[in-house]
Amino acid sequence: MAVSCRALLQEAENFIYQYGGELGVPSAELEARIAQVKAELEATGTYTHTSEELAYGAKLAWRNSNRCIGRLFWESLIVQDARAAATEEEIADAVFRHIDYATNGGKILPTITIFAPSADAERPRIRIWNEQLIRYAGYRQADGTVIGDPVSAELTATCEGLGWRGAGTAFDVLPLVIQADGRPPRWFEVPRDSVLEVPLVHPDLPSFGELGLRWYAVPFVSGMRLEIGGLHYTAAPFNGWYMGTEIGARNLADPFRYDMLPKLAALMGLDTSREATLWRDRALVEMNVAVLHSFKAKGVTIVDHHTASKQFALFAEKERQRGRTPTGRWSWLIPPLSPATTGVFHTRYDDTEKKPNYFYQPAPLGG
Amino acid sequence: MAVSCRALLQEAENFIYQYGGELGVPSAELEARIAQVKAELEATGTYTHTSEELAYGAKLAWRNSNRCIGRLFWESLIVQDARAAATEEEIADAVFRHIDYATNGGKILPTITIFAPSADAERPRIRIWNEQLIRYAGYRQADGTVIGDPVSAELTATCEGLGWRGAGTAFDVLPLVIQADGRPPRWFEVPRDSVLEVPLVHPDLPSFGELGLRWYAVPFVSGMRLEIGGLHYTAAPFNGWYMGTEIGARNLADPFRYDMLPKLAALMGLDTSREATLWRDRALVEMNVAVLHSFKAKGVTIVDHHTASKQFALFAEKERQRGRTPTGRWSWLIPPLSPATTGVFHTRYDDTEKKPNYFYQPAPLGG
Repeated sequence: MAVSCRALLQEAENFIYQYGGELGVPSAELEARIAQVKAELEATGTYTHTSEELAYGAKLAWRNSNRCIGRLFWESLIVQDARAAATEEEIADAVFRHIDYATNGGKILPTITIFAPSADAERPRIRIWNEQLIRYAGYRQADGTVIGDPVSAELTATCEGLGWRGAGTAFDVLPLVIQADGRPPRWFEVPRDSVLEVPLVHPDLPSFGELGLRWYAVPFVSGMRLEIGGLHYTAAPFNGWYMGTEIGARNLADPFRYDMLPKLAALMGLDTSREATLWRDRALVEMNVAVLHSFKAKGVTIVDHHTASKQFALFAEKERQRGRTPTGRWSWLIPPLSPATTGVFHTRYDDTEKKPNYFYQPAPLGG
Repeated sequence: MAVSCRALLQEAENFIYQYGGELGVPSAELEARIAQVKAELEATGTYTHTSEELAYGAKLAWRNSNRCIGRLFWESLIVQDARAAATEEEIADAVFRHIDYATNGGKILPTITIFAPSADAERPRIRIWNEQLIRYAGYRQADGTVIGDPVSAELTATCEGLGWRGAGTAFDVLPLVIQADGRPPRWFEVPRDSVLEVPLVHPDLPSFGELGLRWYAVPFVSGMRLEIGGLHYTAAPFNGWYMGTEIGARNLADPFRYDMLPKLAALMGLDTSREATLWRDRALVEMNVAVLHSFKAKGVTIVDHHTASKQFALFAEKERQRGRTPTGRWSWLIPPLSPATTGVFHTRYDDTEKKPNYFYQPAPLGG
């Protein structure tokens, strides 16, 4: 057995023992399964997860995601096995089914769709070039400014290079860009009806609507690599639901994103002549009030950072009750709004990186 | 030369070379100084800083304080050499002079007063039991609640054990507790006229005053050990001025401190029935507005977190210009209010711990 195969076998065994241990699989069954994996590895150089292994592995990867505050719900992840999808059309269709299923008219269902794995993480068979399935384009202008979301400026230029043309507004949904088996990437417009969006209004500021802000309902992370038992699922888009601050305190507020605090402060009539009036802080809170209010009014699942922090504490407690040390990365877990009012701010976390897990991967060529 | 002496000589040499290098001391002078230190070490087992070394060492220790966002002003630190103070009375007098000098009627002067060092950090000759020279007492009640500042509950009980009696309000200034040369600790009431305080009012909420809140003008840190060139200054109280969030987003807001957000929210008429109204965040901002407004109205130096973040960026830039890598600890540098609106949130820092520096020390016996 080659060195790389032995390393893969070791990873496979670690995972299968964890899987079996947590789910109470009889040891004779486990040993038989490992013998089977070993035989497959010797014959083909890789192995194939059962549907059950795949599903549990994806859930474990969520449980092990140290940056994620929403892990209380890791066991409820819905796993769609799309390993058979081979052409770009089949992949796009599976992605669109994922979007519709998980969006669920606003009652968001945490879901992952897993495409065929790669033996080598550096040479992905399938890659979705978008970091999120739904995100707004960012059109860089001649003067360096951006119309839309600056975080998407590069991908937007790439899509234009592939022949895509957007309407040019600040909220154009980018197309899906799929690359499979080394073929040139292809783009697919996300069906308009599949993109649930929330126009943002404020419960007490009627003029808030004049800002013309909106956001998409579901954060679908599509750029990360899911690693289970040594196999690399380089295309495995997943979603939870938003914590309000992700939109209100970062996407719409960061100076290098939509940078809306000065405009909102002007609309609120705040004194922006000095930082000490805390006009940024006041505008920031109202932006976040608007996000939570608008999502709830439209019946779209969202969680505020106070509730999310309590849910995370419950997750950590449950993990300890089951004899496991919950892991976490403090700098990601604290919310960007009033962090010290939440429990996570006052807690230390073990940032050990366990597998299975989701990992960032290098940007695709030209992506 | 004993091993401990050789280690101390090494620390002394490192410091003196840094001191000489940064201040442009001719190398012949430096070598002579090191020979002198070595001779003193051989004769006495320790050595004595010159006034200039002491002053520059204290400034370097500030420059190296990775948790501190206010380091732009490190060179302006005023250093009071109080190494000759030997009795508790002499020490208390020097501390009171420090308080008056640094408070300066509200135009706060960053100042440090340095008492005699100890060769062994674990066996301090002089120790101030207070973590800050001025802090409010916390009286633990039979039902477990605390009147005043819960962070002071232990020291308050200690003071009572030494015979001190406070008035029993939520804002009683604790006495100074000094221990010298292994004698029993003694307490000294801080002269009433020396304690500058700011009653808190809000620019737009007239009823804010009903909360009866106040805070002292100057944060004097008195529990840390200053280490310079291997010598341990275990009593070296220092002060800068407040960043508003320290008071408004932590001392008055934390559930385990004054816990005022629910009361302020009630006064503001906020809907506290659900977290998603962000009543905590709204009350938090207004608490911080009140702090900044009240300090400024009374002419007491204070800085908001936006300005402090910009000042820190300038500090880091100046350090780089001088060929040094600025160090910092992200988790301490980010403010507890709207952190993502400040530059420090979006910057990574090298958390290397350099010397000279200020270090926490174990709580004194019974302290």
